Amino acid sequence: MTDARTALAAALPDSDLITDPDVLAAISHDDAEWAAVGTPVAALRARSTAEVSAAVAACAGLRVPIVPRGAGTGLSGGANAVDGCLVLDLSRMNKIIDIDADNLTVVVQPGVVNDDLKKAVAAHGLWYPPDPASAPWSTIGGNVSTNAGGLCCLKYGVTRDYVLGMEAVVGGPAGQYGTTVRLGRRTTKGVSGYDLAGLFVGSEGTLGVITEVTLRLRPARTQPPRTVVGAFDSVVTAGQAVAAATRSGLVPAALELLDRVCLQAVEEWKHLGLSPSAEALLLAQIDTPGPSGQEEADTMAAVFRDAGALWAEQSTDEFEAEALFAARRLAYPALERLSPVLTEDVCVPRSAVPAILRSILDIAGRHGVRIATIAHAGDGNLHPLILTPPGDDAARAAAQAAFEEMLTAAIALGGTVTAEHGVGLLKRRGMRQEMSPAALAMQRAVKQTFDPLDLFNPGKVVGDPTG
Amino acid sequence: MTDARTALAAALPDSDLITDPDVLAAISHDDAEWAAVGTPVAALRARSTAEVSAAVAACAGLRVPIVPRGAGTGLSGGANAVDGCLVLDLSRMNKIIDIDADNLTVVVQPGVVNDDLKKAVAAHGLWYPPDPASAPWSTIGGNVSTNAGGLCCLKYGVTRDYVLGMEAVVGGPAGQYGTTVRLGRRTTKGVSGYDLAGLFVGSEGTLGVITEVTLRLRPARTQPPRTVVGAFDSVVTAGQAVAAATRSGLVPAALELLDRVCLQAVEEWKHLGLSPSAEALLLAQIDTPGPSGQEEADTMAAVFRDAGALWAEQSTDEFEAEALFAARRLAYPALERLSPVLTEDVCVPRSAVPAILRSILDIAGRHGVRIATIAHAGDGNLHPLILTPPGDDAARAAAQAAFEEMLTAAIALGGTVTAEHGVGLLKRRGMRQEMSPAALAMQRAVKQTFDPLDLFNPGKVVGDPTG
Repeated sequence: MTDARTALAAALPDSDLITDPDVLAAISHDDAEWAAVGTPVAALRARSTAEVSAAVAACAGLRVPIVPRGAGTGLSGGANAVDGCLVLDLSRMNKIIDIDADNLTVVVQPGVVNDDLKKAVAAHGLWYPPDPASAPWSTIGGNVSTNAGGLCCLKYGVTRDYVLGMEAVVGGPAGQYGTTVRLGRRTTKGVSGYDLAGLFVGSEGTLGVITEVTLRLRPARTQPPRTVVGAFDSVVTAGQAVAAATRSGLVPAALELLDRVCLQAVEEWKHLGLSPSAEALLLAQIDTPGPSGQEEADTMAAVFRDAGALWAEQSTDEFEAEALFAARRLAYPALERLSPVLTEDVCVPRSAVPAILRSILDIAGRHGVRIATIAHAGDGNLHPLILTPPGDDAARAAAQAAFEEMLTAAIALGGTVTAEHGVGLLKRRGMRQEMSPAALAMQRAVKQTFDPLDLFNPGKVVGDPTG
Repeated sequence: MTDARTALAAALPDSDLITDPDVLAAISHDDAEWAAVGTPVAALRARSTAEVSAAVAACAGLRVPIVPRGAGTGLSGGANAVDGCLVLDLSRMNKIIDIDADNLTVVVQPGVVNDDLKKAVAAHGLWYPPDPASAPWSTIGGNVSTNAGGLCCLKYGVTRDYVLGMEAVVGGPAGQYGTTVRLGRRTTKGVSGYDLAGLFVGSEGTLGVITEVTLRLRPARTQPPRTVVGAFDSVVTAGQAVAAATRSGLVPAALELLDRVCLQAVEEWKHLGLSPSAEALLLAQIDTPGPSGQEEADTMAAVFRDAGALWAEQSTDEFEAEALFAARRLAYPALERLSPVLTEDVCVPRSAVPAILRSILDIAGRHGVRIATIAHAGDGNLHPLILTPPGDDAARAAAQAAFEEMLTAAIALGGTVTAEHGVGLLKRRGMRQEMSPAALAMQRAVKQTFDPLDLFNPGKVVGDPTG
């Protein structure tokens, strides 16, 4: 390892390589519990595309793997170091290069934090919708690499729907490792060649390093949204209300589910004044303007009641509505305070939401594990959170068994093992279960084509889960 | 050729191969003027995925290229036969397999006609938005293969935004040519592996043959949209109004431009009662429900007037509004009645719409060619139509020179050579101009990976334009 480090330092005389073991350890992993973490030879906080290009070229010459990372808020181990790698931290490349209000686009470096982007474009009357719960910390580069979703993708789509083009440092067919290319476009439409920008979205740094992104924006919403809350005596009943809402033709901006464990954890931490008496809450956000929005809110409340809600009403208090969505966003860190959390990210057809919720209760019961559930329920995207007491090996084994069983249950219902967190390390086995051998072979061929030396984030996504 | 035909017939004893020269000639090309058309050895109107699979396997064994096609309404030569190929017509695979109102999805075979799909899902209160002008004839397989757009993609996105998953018959890394795979998913979200379904969208049959598509739907719109019409004394002024509309934060469902040549051609043919006195019309369609929609329509009319419209008003007559949009959809066939039409499909950033319109006038003047322009102006997507007297070789040469110059002009303004028609044969040179050599090498590597024998629609998209 020392040899590789010395050689890398010699090859990159203008870069400050980080070699301090404590700093290296701190930037060698993301937020995925129990995913394997390797030991890097060094890390680099790149300042420019030129520096990324030089680093990739040097790494290729020395056959040092490259693990790109942003804020490290990922939940699948996609940013975890592998042994002997260079951790390439892009969080310092955080410039907003061009806000173009005439064309509803913005050009950013990958290290720009999601919420910082939102604030900057809001000052121009514009809106960047994708809103993962990590938005206050996570970077656009990471959001693009995992195709991050969030709450409002029910109506406004995921990160993929906002990426028009990008600059990336690549290898393989483009020429030498370290070659900089532009993929995609800056126009609203375009079919000039294969959609390689789209292919890089969600590729978790395994095909190259994204150094700039051109994003589509929307005009800012001009009216505050309406919030409808429904309380239910079971998560399954709440799931049935979600299926009924979809059937009714309503398209809310968000339709979220929180169970009682989540609500209690948030309340104990933040004292927002929530009364977590029901087993599950549904939060619907409706942003259709004017009287039509009011009609939709009334319909949503009626749908909740017809589906068996204990109560359902529109929040007339904007402060209260904000507190409810704040609770939703805080659920994950609130639970993480209490114990290690293993996070699921399954997605099923919306009509199967009650069935997967029933499966989760069953799996928790059989394995004796505690599972709290938050869900982008309107999208069929559930985040069951498996809570384990620290240092309890038996509980950890049970949690891992429950984790794999939930993946199997989602696939059996026509779903997928990851909706928005990415495959990383933790979902590789699930992905193999979800796809046919022929489809998997096509996946591996893409990796082999763009990264023949297997240097870009090796082992992730298409890597061998047993290795 | 006869040998290949005999061998193909022997290898496909259960298929009815078409060998009649007149029928072959009729299904050997799409609607692209002057794109090269080769001579197939045979054609096959496939009835099932199994038949497609057998045909692809047989073709691979005999090294016979495969040119898939739907209705043949393409405008870039993407469905044109190459010498010695099998034309694989998918228009008979036209079953709507499953309309799932609970999950807002539909599963279709590739030969389903766009408008037939729209009608079928409308009966369930659902809507499939992508609306290319060819919607009464073009098939979903063709729409997916070119990533077709249309009028309402300004607000509702292009075909890509509706494709969740697909079944395809492939070769290369998946195993033997003729292997059937499922790509993508049926859930609303998903990041399990690289987005290969997305990669196949817009790939024009060069990576495999799409045999089934799972599409996302929306709830049907419940209120008739509002139409705002603006008349302008020049196309450039109309273009400035488009840029002003974008800046204003309005998001109409459609924002179309027609110049006087188009309006006259439609009127002479259909007698819709249009009065084509202005040099350009803008048609805006606003579908925000209720009073907010009325406010937006008023703002749009004001934006048109402030930008210098001769007049701008909301159509209060639904019949008249429908006639205006009918005129838009009929513009292309109306012009095609008069003379051969070479169709452009450039897209520029929306703020550059006035500049590209100025360039088009300049190019037409310098080359002495007649150019009519229709445009999805709100998307920056223009379709200048070059009209040439039949049998005039000098006019044809001038038209081709003008065609290439418009591509150069679009690229210089930060645009792309094709927004929604695809590269096919006609835009291969433009695509090479638009992309860097490194990006082109990545494009070619994708083709080589998925089709190492170069059998799927060879020569298209990444093919050599001089060959």
